[in-house]
This record gives sequence, C-alpha cells and structure tokens, in this order.
Amino acid sequence: MVTQTVNEAIQAVDEKLRSVVASDVDLLTDASRHIIKSGGKRMRPRLVFLAYLAAGGQDVVEAVPLAAAIELVHTATLVHDDINDHSLTRRGQATVHARWGRTFALLTGDYLFTKVYEMMAPYGPAYNVVMADACVKLVEGETLQAAAAKSGQMDRETYKTIIARKTASLFEAAARMGAQLGGANQDMVNALSSYAHDLGLAFQIVDDILDIIGDPETMGKPVGGDLTKGAGAFVVQNGQHTDGTAVLEAPAEVDPIKAMLSRLRESGAVEIARMEAVQLADRALRSLADLPPSAARDEMQALAEAIVEREQ
Amino acid sequence: MVTQTVNEAIQAVDEKLRSVVASDVDLLTDASRHIIKSGGKRMRPRLVFLAYLAAGGQDVVEAVPLAAAIELVHTATLVHDDINDHSLTRRGQATVHARWGRTFALLTGDYLFTKVYEMMAPYGPAYNVVMADACVKLVEGETLQAAAAKSGQMDRETYKTIIARKTASLFEAAARMGAQLGGANQDMVNALSSYAHDLGLAFQIVDDILDIIGDPETMGKPVGGDLTKGAGAFVVQNGQHTDGTAVLEAPAEVDPIKAMLSRLRESGAVEIARMEAVQLADRALRSLADLPPSAARDEMQALAEAIVEREQ
Repeated sequence: MVTQTVNEAIQAVDEKLRSVVASDVDLLTDASRHIIKSGGKRMRPRLVFLAYLAAGGQDVVEAVPLAAAIELVHTATLVHDDINDHSLTRRGQATVHARWGRTFALLTGDYLFTKVYEMMAPYGPAYNVVMADACVKLVEGETLQAAAAKSGQMDRETYKTIIARKTASLFEAAARMGAQLGGANQDMVNALSSYAHDLGLAFQIVDDILDIIGDPETMGKPVGGDLTKGAGAFVVQNGQHTDGTAVLEAPAEVDPIKAMLSRLRESGAVEIARMEAVQLADRALRSLADLPPSAARDEMQALAEAIVEREQ
Repeated sequence: MVTQTVNEAIQAVDEKLRSVVASDVDLLTDASRHIIKSGGKRMRPRLVFLAYLAAGGQDVVEAVPLAAAIELVHTATLVHDDINDHSLTRRGQATVHARWGRTFALLTGDYLFTKVYEMMAPYGPAYNVVMADACVKLVEGETLQAAAAKSGQMDRETYKTIIARKTASLFEAAARMGAQLGGANQDMVNALSSYAHDLGLAFQIVDDILDIIGDPETMGKPVGGDLTKGAGAFVVQNGQHTDGTAVLEAPAEVDPIKAMLSRLRESGAVEIARMEAVQLADRALRSLADLPPSAARDEMQALAEAIVEREQ
C-alpha cells in the first residue's frame, strides 16, 4: 500500500521534472530531459515521501514538487560530474557531455540548478535554508573528492567527510523537508534526518564497493571508473597488507586499474567496507525506533536493509 | 551624498562577498576570493541600492546581503563563462580556470551559485521568485549565445533575446528587489524594473562595442575576444555594405579577427549600435519620470547617461 503510493508519487516526480525543464531554448529542454530520462534510483524523492508519510502527512501529492526539486539537485550534479570525469555513458545512455559537448553540458547543469531554485522559491525559509545548506555541502564534497583524486591522497577521515557532504547531506535534507511538510514535530524531524544521513553514508559506501566488484552489465557503466578518480578510496584505504603496505601498487606490466581491482577483491577490503555500510544501516534503523509505528516506517526499515544488499 | 552612501554600501558588499564564500575547503575560499577580488563595476549592487533609496528606503545597509547575492550570481556566471570561452585573463588577472584548472573552476562556479542560494534562503518567495526567474533567463541567454557562436548564425532578434536574458534580466531583478525592500508601491517597482531592464540592454550593447573598438589597456583584456564567440554580433550584424554583403568576410591573408575589427570600425556599424544604446538609455530615463524626485533618481539618471559614454 505505502509502496504503491510512493511509487505513484515517484512517477509524478518524473512527470514534474519533464515539464519543469521545458524552455524555448530547445537544447536545454532536450538535454535536460535526456538526463532525467536516464533515470536512476530516485532514492532522494523516495526519502521525501517516506519521511512525509512517517511524519503523518496525509496527501503525498503535496510533496511532489519538493521531491522533484531534490532529485533535480542530484541530476544537475551528475551532468557536471560527467564533464569533470570525462564520462561518456551513464546508465547505458550517452552523457549530456558526450552528446551535446562540454559547453552545453556545463550550461545544462547550471540550468537544472536554476530550475531547482525556481521550484524552491515559493517555499519559505524553513525549507530553503535546509536545501541551500545541502547544496553548499554537496559542492564542497565534490571539490574535496576532486582534490583527493588529483593529489592521489585520501585517508579514512577525508573519505568520510566527502561522502557525508556529497551524498548524506542531500539524503538528510530530503527526509528533513519531507518530515517538515508532513507536520512532524522537532524530535521526529531529527530522527528522520539522522536516519537519512546514515542511510546516505551506507548507500555511498555500497556504491563505491559496486564500482569495484559490480557486474558492468547490471551497473550499466564500466566498473573501476571511480578508482581512477579516487572515489573508491574507502575500499582502497582498507586494502592494506598486514604490514601496512598498500595492495594498490599495481604491477607495471598489466592494466593498473584491472590489477588494482583484482588485488582489492582478494584483499578483504571490500568485506571491511561492506561491514562498515552494514553498521551505518544499523545505526539508521536505530533512529527509526523513536518514531511512532507506521507502514512508512516499516518501508524505511526495509529500505535500509535493502541498500546494503543491493547489487546495482 | 547619495554617491557616497552607495559607494560605502558597495564596499560593504565586497566585504560580505569575501566573508560569505569562506569554506573549510580552502580551494573554494581561495578561488572564490580571487574572482571576487578581480572586481568589476558592481553595476548590479549599485542598482539594488539606488532602487532601494529611490523607493524611499531609509537604511541602505539593510540591502547589502541582497546586493551581494545579486553580484554573486554575476560572478558565478563569469567563472563558468571563462571555462567555455577558454579565457585566461579577466581584468588583468588570471581566470579561475587558468589558475586552478577546469574541474575546480566548474566547481567554484557551482559553489558560488549555492552561496547565492544560501544568502537568498532567508528571504521570502517575493524575492526568491524574482531572483530564480532572473537566474533561469540568464542561463538561457548564455545558452542561446553559445549556440549562436557555434552555428555562426546570429540575427538581430536573436541578439536582442540574448542580451535581454543574459544581462537585462539580472539588472531588472536587482532594481525590482531593491525597490521591494525599500517599500516601493507596485507602480514604482515597475518603473524601476523597466529602467533597469533598458539600462541592462544599453550596457550590454556598449560592452559589445567596446570589445570591438576599446583600448586593450583600459579594458584589462584583449579586444576582439567576443567576436570569436559571437557576442559582438549586434555590431557585426549592423556591419553590412549597402548591397547587403557582410563586411565580415575577412581577407584570408591576414589575422581574420584583426581584419574584422578594422572593417567594422570603418563600416559605421559601431555608430549604429551606439545610437541604439543611446535610444535604450533614453527609454530608461523616461521610466524614471514616473518616480518622485529624489537624489537617488538623479543618480540613476546620471548612470544611464554615463553608461553609453563609458570607455571601459
């Protein structure tokens, strides 16, 4: 029942996104709809709706514009990420960068972000302050990641800061605003925000694991890609021999990425990272304990369990 | 008196901008402050303050955060423009792109835009709807310009649409929000918005003229740069021989940009464009006639007259 309500609301988000990006500048409409159509898991809208319902919200349709705005922040960053990563495909589709070129990809990302702002403008400060804070953190996280990739240096603390800012902050904002709109009291808002934050951390760690061990067919993109930009570093920095030397010193005679992947898979680093994700998902579940029982809360519990098991 | 008040408020904008971009991600602080320090004419904050005062606002300090947010929109677009235009200098300084590289320039532009959003978040919908609308138009204008540059096609209508969206929309938003904050009634808000819109059009035409005939020393950047990206096209499209053939077919044996500049200077196109700017400035002045007399209104009048005479 909740599942169906949420899935219908997510369809409404997709329609909202399609319509909101319409412009008389055809290129912006086309490129925006292209990336929107490429889809994704719609995790952030899902969190908006579940938090809204768990907070006691009665009509999930009310939360559609907010959920669409949150998803569009994520979408905008994907367009810019693909420029910086020189990615040519995303979910089996050409990236905006590959299809329209760098200049228009940059402008499309900017456009999507201005559309987020336009969608959020009618809401008051209680929502916009939360959203703006998440957006700032997101760009800071992306920048830390790019700096780490460039320097080749990433320790555990840096990795945690990166995933907290680039992923968990927007997950948290989604739940916080959904809860607010659903009429939650402050304790409920905080509980749902904590849940979403930890869920975001677990989600990103699993994402980085899948980049290393995932099946390229299931993933719809080449695996190992994130290793070249330093994102898989959480797994990587767990991949040390017992004497402390890194398992990542790839032998020069083979493809270094393939060698790294192979060594990482064998090193046990992936298992350590997955354990860390499980612990974070557990912590997310504990935040739910403070909420009144509801079908939405059950769904959030299932979501936290599914996230650490996912294979794409 | 008004001049001094406004100049002090603009200094406060610079200080506000410097402080608001502070981040624990040092690169973002440094790159942001670098582009802010490169300065500019601060036309948009000036319009916020003058509209605020003309509307009867009593304490210009109240308008500083708004004025800073508007200027920061402009600043963010400069950072992204410089990536797309491969510009290495701006106002005699290295661009963010030249100094920090493309990836970090893209992220710095994104960061500045999230900071705009953060600064605007405490304001209500009456301000954010205006600002969001201007931001959307701005990106649309930039996209139309990039598309025109790519296709090599630009007619007079397209040029006018481009400058209306990429320049006049933010000028207009500045005056509109300044007027709102100053307590203007709807007629005054509309008069000040119309003034600023026409001023923006005139300003951009003169900018494009200066790109063609300006003194590189005074300008702090190479002249002719915009010709290569199609921005000088208003002047260019006036540059036709009486038989309708373009003056822009540069002889192959010399630097084509230099040849175009030389022919444009001789063709009378620059004079036609400047006349157009003068007419727009006149229309801006007529919008002021509906306002009650004030020192700020006199200053806005002087500004419209100065804009078409400026040489940098």
